[in-house]
Amino acid sequence: MTGVDETYVRVFDTTLRDGEQSPGATLSSAEKLEIARQLAALGVDIIEAGFPAASPDDLAAVQRIAREVGTPDGPVICGLARAVRDDILTCWEGVKDAAKPRIHTFLGTSDIHLKYQTGLTRAQALERIREMVTLARSLCEDVEFSPMDAGRTDPDFLIEVCALAVECGATTLNIPDTVGYVTPQEWGALIARLIAETPGAGRGSGIIWSVHCHNDLGLATANTLAGVEAGARQVEVTINGIGERAGNTSLEEVVMALHTRAPYYGLRTNINTREIVKTSRMVSNYTGLHVQPNKAIVGANAFAHEAGIHQDGMLKNASTYEIMTPDSVGWSQSKLVLGKHSGRHALKARLQELGYNVEGDALNQVFARFKALADAKKTVTDADLQALIADEFHGPEEIFRLDDIQVTCGTMGMPTATVKLTNADGETFIHAAVGTGPVHAAYSAIDAIVQAPNELIEYSVHSVTEGIAALGEVTVRIASPSDGRSFGGYGADADIVVASVKAYLAALNRMITSMGYGERKPEGEAATVGLNTETA
Amino acid sequence: MTGVDETYVRVFDTTLRDGEQSPGATLSSAEKLEIARQLAALGVDIIEAGFPAASPDDLAAVQRIAREVGTPDGPVICGLARAVRDDILTCWEGVKDAAKPRIHTFLGTSDIHLKYQTGLTRAQALERIREMVTLARSLCEDVEFSPMDAGRTDPDFLIEVCALAVECGATTLNIPDTVGYVTPQEWGALIARLIAETPGAGRGSGIIWSVHCHNDLGLATANTLAGVEAGARQVEVTINGIGERAGNTSLEEVVMALHTRAPYYGLRTNINTREIVKTSRMVSNYTGLHVQPNKAIVGANAFAHEAGIHQDGMLKNASTYEIMTPDSVGWSQSKLVLGKHSGRHALKARLQELGYNVEGDALNQVFARFKALADAKKTVTDADLQALIADEFHGPEEIFRLDDIQVTCGTMGMPTATVKLTNADGETFIHAAVGTGPVHAAYSAIDAIVQAPNELIEYSVHSVTEGIAALGEVTVRIASPSDGRSFGGYGADADIVVASVKAYLAALNRMITSMGYGERKPEGEAATVGLNTETA
Repeated sequence: MTGVDETYVRVFDTTLRDGEQSPGATLSSAEKLEIARQLAALGVDIIEAGFPAASPDDLAAVQRIAREVGTPDGPVICGLARAVRDDILTCWEGVKDAAKPRIHTFLGTSDIHLKYQTGLTRAQALERIREMVTLARSLCEDVEFSPMDAGRTDPDFLIEVCALAVECGATTLNIPDTVGYVTPQEWGALIARLIAETPGAGRGSGIIWSVHCHNDLGLATANTLAGVEAGARQVEVTINGIGERAGNTSLEEVVMALHTRAPYYGLRTNINTREIVKTSRMVSNYTGLHVQPNKAIVGANAFAHEAGIHQDGMLKNASTYEIMTPDSVGWSQSKLVLGKHSGRHALKARLQELGYNVEGDALNQVFARFKALADAKKTVTDADLQALIADEFHGPEEIFRLDDIQVTCGTMGMPTATVKLTNADGETFIHAAVGTGPVHAAYSAIDAIVQAPNELIEYSVHSVTEGIAALGEVTVRIASPSDGRSFGGYGADADIVVASVKAYLAALNRMITSMGYGERKPEGEAATVGLNTETA
Repeated sequence: MTGVDETYVRVFDTTLRDGEQSPGATLSSAEKLEIARQLAALGVDIIEAGFPAASPDDLAAVQRIAREVGTPDGPVICGLARAVRDDILTCWEGVKDAAKPRIHTFLGTSDIHLKYQTGLTRAQALERIREMVTLARSLCEDVEFSPMDAGRTDPDFLIEVCALAVECGATTLNIPDTVGYVTPQEWGALIARLIAETPGAGRGSGIIWSVHCHNDLGLATANTLAGVEAGARQVEVTINGIGERAGNTSLEEVVMALHTRAPYYGLRTNINTREIVKTSRMVSNYTGLHVQPNKAIVGANAFAHEAGIHQDGMLKNASTYEIMTPDSVGWSQSKLVLGKHSGRHALKARLQELGYNVEGDALNQVFARFKALADAKKTVTDADLQALIADEFHGPEEIFRLDDIQVTCGTMGMPTATVKLTNADGETFIHAAVGTGPVHAAYSAIDAIVQAPNELIEYSVHSVTEGIAALGEVTVRIASPSDGRSFGGYGADADIVVASVKAYLAALNRMITSMGYGERKPEGEAATVGLNTETA
């Protein structure tokens, strides 16, 4: 026995790695850092901060999180690496400045992945694992290995792979159901068998078994819990269950199942459940991936009772229909309000409670917008503040900035928008365009100035808070026609058309920056100060 | 043996009953009928069409579905009734005209429900069940009984209750986990025990066992499948998993798990899986409950692969990362497009394929809007057509009709809207108002005319299809301050402000109608033709 506490389940959050792989959910470095800070406040044990070898930006974001969030009393900071020498070296560069760094390396081990993904034989795969886990362990004491597509891998081969990884120094063995294919019974049986039969990795060995599930059939939470019941003591999860395709296992569902059914599972986590709703909102705001109203725990309706008979029961005794309280996951905390008479000090204090340290000029900027909003809508909620902060500080580099926009629309036809933008060199452009609606007209005017061809693949608007006088939030995703990569943009304003324009400009700026168009200037007649009217 | 096919799982869809209990998801009678038709096309075995005793409107909607969808080769049409004489009699009025009617009656049997909900002792509860199941069976040959909150009911008492219900004529025993509390293992064990130990209801008895799960801990799909593995042969589900709080079990998840893992479960359903996406969209449009992008099966990202390594694998062999095809659930079918040169005949044929029989004047109306849309956005997809049909035909009674709206907004401040409405008596009202944004300004102008106080509790906008030139869809929910009931409204227009106004008016008209304000006229100075400018 190595003294591992068998009742403790480690929460490994991969919102910033697997979650960010959701189509269109690209996060800026600043947004990733903010989310990592909130994950630390939530009490996760391990943050998978990114895939450092993917790009220099990804490496820089992981490094920043390792330095700023990976403190001695903070979470383990982990990076992902393919079982490839350069990936592992780059990963170590990313995480090494954390007090508790981890390298997570993986290789597909199912026959279908070996055949179509890597072209390795089983023997070659074993050799690769031996070399790469050994390399990782030579750099870092904390090494996690994942046999990708374990759900479809021959169990005997899986045992051989896991034993080898442990022999070469892996300390955590993570078993992923990469395609979301398994049932809870199958998964529990597999994990139990692996723990029982893998040499050097049984109970008392000190090796931590982990499960990583996907939700393609709606079974991710149940499969993860089945893994835990079978002996896994790490769960790989994301906030709101975001991730590839139908997403990963939801942190909030697994944690609240363990919490609500504590006598059944007999297990505990380090999660401060009252931070769940706040974290959910931050991730939803920054990724632009909305949470549906009927989402467990964090959906807007999760604690709402409509039927008369249910409301009646609730009034008589809440436990008639409620197995956990909204308070326990932090719903009530998000309802505190500030008003037009709240001062700079109250605003700063509230922002600090929300996890934002805003001072000096930045505070002045936020305070000015806060006052304008408080004048317009009487009460400003935490959700408004979060939207405002997101809009103010987490936009991309501004290649083009919105100076002014003026719109006329309605049922009379010919919605028209006039847009004034300034580029990084201080040049000003004005353009007017007609569209099918006010947003289309405004986007057409912007397109005429910016001239960065793109396909708009998503446009959505959510009112941040109750009441139509509130800030409207707009999320936009565009795809580059050259390589299909998608870029998200976010904008918040009480005027829905202005919010739409901010979001589109944010996405465009992100696309232009990423394509190295930073030096690019608008061309042709639209790139002059003057009025050009164009129909769409 | 009664010849029951043990490999066949009945799909009992309760979208129109438990699903409609989602906060704000109130459906009109016409929308319910349209959804019931689509559920029949999807191949569900039983449609729970409503709770007839809830209101005369609910009764009328169930009757209409029983008559028009409950054909001899159509699904069973079921109504819900508390275990109360009047409920059961009204329920029978609702379903009796169906070729295959069913009465579904229920009583809470957990100690907590008995104590706080009905105030009955266990003996009194048994007596009530005896009387009411006997009554239901005297009216209808097909009777389903549910012991509500079975998940928290003493199993011995549950067996006694189930045996009594069968003795009194129940043909289906539905076991609900009303509060979403159980784990798959517990649930499977309970269902297995009930089937084994309930006198008169074991295997071969001809009694169908059913499971009804809620998703509060994200386990509804797993619990439902555990029930099926234990011998249940009916699953109670909703489209998109809508329902009270975190919702019911998702039809699409359970069906696709049984389908994708057919060799594992060895079971089949009657569902035509290619109708799943179309049904999902219809329910999402009509209820205003959006589906999150990472929702299994029906989310926009459910089949999207972002990570480079995954895309690479997909190109090499789709089965590397995909366990079912988008085609198998009907994703591709929803992408067919019509253009500006498509004629009336093509439109009519496409609408018929989508399940809408539109003829005569109605077809002229839709064709005119189709042409206007095709001119504006070049291609019109099935999603556009569904939005257009929803907007055109499924609104509430028009107490106030939108004649015209004119809006000016932008960064210059003072967003202003002028609205012209006509009431049921043909009187016309014009009002201008200023707001924090164009939508707020327009809503303020409407409020000044209509004068029906309400609280706006949700406002959301979704672009129906790719591209910003598309129809924008707006869903609005308002609550009546007098009794807290909520009313939804839906609007579609290429102009987002116009769509917002349509949605708000639809919700207002629904609220006014429901409150018997039909005769009510606007009062005071706003109720004159003329211009009143008001700041918000």
